[in-house]
Amino acid sequence: MQSVSKVIAVPARGSFIVLEGGEGAGKTTQLQEIAQWLQASGWLAKLRSRGIDPPLVVTREPGGTALGQDLRHLLLHTTMEIAPLSELLLYAADRAQHVATCIQPQLAQGGIVLCDRFTASTVAYQGYGRGLDLALIDQVNRIATAGVVPDLVLWLDVPPQVGLERSRQRGRSDRFEQTALAFHERVQAGFAAQAAAGGDRWQRIQADAPPEVIRQAIQTCVDQHLRQWYD
Amino acid sequence: MQSVSKVIAVPARGSFIVLEGGEGAGKTTQLQEIAQWLQASGWLAKLRSRGIDPPLVVTREPGGTALGQDLRHLLLHTTMEIAPLSELLLYAADRAQHVATCIQPQLAQGGIVLCDRFTASTVAYQGYGRGLDLALIDQVNRIATAGVVPDLVLWLDVPPQVGLERSRQRGRSDRFEQTALAFHERVQAGFAAQAAAGGDRWQRIQADAPPEVIRQAIQTCVDQHLRQWYD
Repeated sequence: MQSVSKVIAVPARGSFIVLEGGEGAGKTTQLQEIAQWLQASGWLAKLRSRGIDPPLVVTREPGGTALGQDLRHLLLHTTMEIAPLSELLLYAADRAQHVATCIQPQLAQGGIVLCDRFTASTVAYQGYGRGLDLALIDQVNRIATAGVVPDLVLWLDVPPQVGLERSRQRGRSDRFEQTALAFHERVQAGFAAQAAAGGDRWQRIQADAPPEVIRQAIQTCVDQHLRQWYD
Repeated sequence: MQSVSKVIAVPARGSFIVLEGGEGAGKTTQLQEIAQWLQASGWLAKLRSRGIDPPLVVTREPGGTALGQDLRHLLLHTTMEIAPLSELLLYAADRAQHVATCIQPQLAQGGIVLCDRFTASTVAYQGYGRGLDLALIDQVNRIATAGVVPDLVLWLDVPPQVGLERSRQRGRSDRFEQTALAFHERVQAGFAAQAAAGGDRWQRIQADAPPEVIRQAIQTCVDQHLRQWYD
């Protein structure tokens, strides 16, 4: 079996990299930085030369698909009272669409998926934050993802009060950012618990460091992961 | 225990009555007929005299809540390609909101819920119709309903070609009504299988009979059920 696997240049599946973190952790900025670095570092050219096209898809949850855009709007900006279980299932519907039409096809052809939030956010926000049963969330996540799990999770760890202050300075304010600090502290604890249990798949990035330090730490993690994955 | 239960006038839970059936089965018309008959027959006054207020809530799926209205529009009128699993989870989100904010509170205060479609439609349409795994649907239905099951299911059984023709004559045309006859025949088989397994909870109403005969059959079923439930 080993000798067979050595002659396969393209792995059976691409690499699924997820950025996770609370409000104001800087995920969106770092996502763009990673994408630019993947281009500049030659990783994308290397994958393209192996016939992987596109080599990279950058996406997010909620809202990574056309359906997701509608749901994202509904979820983040509605003034309706949404029952916690219903909220969980709406995120799951968005995720199922995202996995089926975007993530899964890109991984199947061997490419990289770089995604802003995935199942860990559901565990942190709906589970630890809102207090929904964690076993139920796990069950719903498993249904929605059809078994797709991230290969690398970069957790941008920032103290909730620092992150919220950053968010406010950006002038953004959605339904989650308006929630009390105590909620965001529970969310933070949710990410910490998952990171502790996540083994090598989870990498904690100290996200209240200077931007250049954060960027460097992320690049090192991603480069190391991709070498293991593709070389 | 028996002597205790006899002195309780209001049952611990109200009665959950669901109308099921394919396109053009006449559910909407019959729902109104039942509501009018409950009023005329004195059932609503009787429940109100026991402090159950409102005695009756008439509702439907999808779309029984404000959130559900948005989702109903999305589900029935979108031109987007929705992945089958995502569709299943959107219906589940609608259902979870509906159960939590409408059905459950009405049942908890002892009242009647009369609902156009519930979990059996998901089994028939997404399971038998679209071919999604029935065990998965069952799992999702159980999550969304938090264990609430109908006490009486009235299945308006009409041959698919007759029902579709009725639908077309009404000039209605949503995403489901535009689907091929073979799909609706599978849906029909799905209702039949559930009715066969549903025991006394399921009542089959032959819905290609004259309107007066259908109305009479339904009234008999509902009256008998409510006598057992409330008297």
